[in-house]
Amino acid sequence: MYTKFPSGDSSDSVRALVWRDSGLDILDQRCLPEIIRFETFDTAEGVAEAIKTMRIRGAPAIGIAAAYGVVLAARCRYAQDSVGWHRDIDTDFKVLASSRPTAVNLLWALNRMRDSLPDIQGNPEEALLHLAKSIHEDDIDANHRMGELGADLLQGVDGVLTHCNTGSLATGGYGTALGVIRSGVRRGLKRIFATETRPWLQGARLTVWELQQDRIAATLLADSAAASLMRNGSVQWVVVGADRITANGDVANKIGTYSLAVLARSHGVKFMVVAPTSTVDWDLNDGKLIEIEQRDAQELLPAYYCNAESCIDAWNPVFDMTPAGLIDAIVTEKGVVLNPSEGGLEALRSRSMI
Amino acid sequence: MYTKFPSGDSSDSVRALVWRDSGLDILDQRCLPEIIRFETFDTAEGVAEAIKTMRIRGAPAIGIAAAYGVVLAARCRYAQDSVGWHRDIDTDFKVLASSRPTAVNLLWALNRMRDSLPDIQGNPEEALLHLAKSIHEDDIDANHRMGELGADLLQGVDGVLTHCNTGSLATGGYGTALGVIRSGVRRGLKRIFATETRPWLQGARLTVWELQQDRIAATLLADSAAASLMRNGSVQWVVVGADRITANGDVANKIGTYSLAVLARSHGVKFMVVAPTSTVDWDLNDGKLIEIEQRDAQELLPAYYCNAESCIDAWNPVFDMTPAGLIDAIVTEKGVVLNPSEGGLEALRSRSMI
Repeated sequence: MYTKFPSGDSSDSVRALVWRDSGLDILDQRCLPEIIRFETFDTAEGVAEAIKTMRIRGAPAIGIAAAYGVVLAARCRYAQDSVGWHRDIDTDFKVLASSRPTAVNLLWALNRMRDSLPDIQGNPEEALLHLAKSIHEDDIDANHRMGELGADLLQGVDGVLTHCNTGSLATGGYGTALGVIRSGVRRGLKRIFATETRPWLQGARLTVWELQQDRIAATLLADSAAASLMRNGSVQWVVVGADRITANGDVANKIGTYSLAVLARSHGVKFMVVAPTSTVDWDLNDGKLIEIEQRDAQELLPAYYCNAESCIDAWNPVFDMTPAGLIDAIVTEKGVVLNPSEGGLEALRSRSMI
Repeated sequence: MYTKFPSGDSSDSVRALVWRDSGLDILDQRCLPEIIRFETFDTAEGVAEAIKTMRIRGAPAIGIAAAYGVVLAARCRYAQDSVGWHRDIDTDFKVLASSRPTAVNLLWALNRMRDSLPDIQGNPEEALLHLAKSIHEDDIDANHRMGELGADLLQGVDGVLTHCNTGSLATGGYGTALGVIRSGVRRGLKRIFATETRPWLQGARLTVWELQQDRIAATLLADSAAASLMRNGSVQWVVVGADRITANGDVANKIGTYSLAVLARSHGVKFMVVAPTSTVDWDLNDGKLIEIEQRDAQELLPAYYCNAESCIDAWNPVFDMTPAGLIDAIVTEKGVVLNPSEGGLEALRSRSMI
């Protein structure tokens, strides 16, 4: 149990992932806001399980956790076999890669870790830990950069609406969409509205909790109230993150994102997606090609209906797909793409190759 | 505790209000779906409290409950003072009228009861009970009539989406929007989708429960998933009830209704409102004039944020307003108004005067 968070930045005090010599400390986000509990994971299987069970969630945070998972895998495999570890660690990559679909950052981070393996001589831990830490730090740096670029678009804006949790809890720190909002608040943005985000209530349990830790005022609303909020003129922008962006600028993100995009367009409210370029799936050129993860009906269905005689079921897609045509700006650490439907993300492509 | 419902109709088996000599039995809808518990109320104050605390909800059901509340008030006042009861009962009318705002049926039912008072000689109970029962039975008859009229519009339709609970639990029996769906199912309607309806979860706790009692298959989804459902072509109509309809055809209904109407229009999905003419507020000619009831922030906010130091609040409007221009059909017991934005409800007006 922690009473203080380790970030050292009072305007961005929460961290969901903390590396220690003993392993990776992961804040169990299923227990928030009532309980702040970190657990230490010292194996790749443990990290994969933490991702699968949603102790840790958020596309960038999952990628960073997986990178640390590779460090733990290498420590274990090298101790078992200092020659054959290069081969044995392949199993761990597969376990980590299969921990959650949709989030392309996970594969991106694992590929970066894997690409470094051939050059490693002797004990791999130090080199891999160095790389995992730099992935983590680069993510925070990218979020600060996106925060400033996104806040440039919010000049003179009174109110914004965000969906799901895209903050320090979902990333290495600072956040993507919530990072833009943090930067906006520093420049005078007045009103922040957050949807509850059913069924997992990331808005109610995580986003407003995280803002509360940093004393940033916010107002929670039911997902279904967003249209009325737009109609009464309270918000001029919707600002969201992304789980995967295809090369043409289509965005897969938390269920309800597409709904907000349609409603925003109908009300003259602008729509901003904030995500690092590691979220872009350059191999896909159409969001329709993304297979949408379905989660357990029981996340929605009261237990009463969960029996063999029941004629009630649930449809529980975790993500939806927002076509580029409904998006006014995609903000990445490499720059901003306005009206992505006009040319996709091609302009970013050369800049994002590492 | 009941094990069987008293309606006697196996395709519409649930009743939320049952008159007995000892008083009005009200099914406590806060406990569903887990617990079926009726409580007997034998005073007008008790009935008003049952409405205020949402043991009973749904605009038509509230009106019927209030009518029975007047019977209980008259029984009590007449026993206290067989001459002055006419005067004393005024307090009870006020208590019942203030139990819930927005629902115009409540005032409509109370006015019908009040209008009968001058003609009553001697013990008023029998005459008032007769009137309350006829309000109740007329509501069920009206729902069956609307069911058939609405189902006419659903010819050849595969799937419909409904919001909140508008069924037997929300009315005297059969339901308004859910009555149309019941009639549609009898004629071959295949797929029924129901939103959860945050924050009170009327869809998850009441609508699919009620359908389950009658063995009508249904699929629950998060409110925010409705846009994706429309996009994938699963539904051709959205069918909802109303808490108040203004003379120009604007509709106040459960929060999220307006959102569904905007999304339906964007996806080429048709939008039907089903309500008895007692829901029409002929004195208002614009939905913008309806004051929207706000409920406690704690219905949305986890207890963690509910303290003096918190910088997190919630915006919790219970209803929203759907302009007539987004509505394809308003179905009443007096007939159907297509495209109500073209002439409001004027065509119904003469037909609905009693």
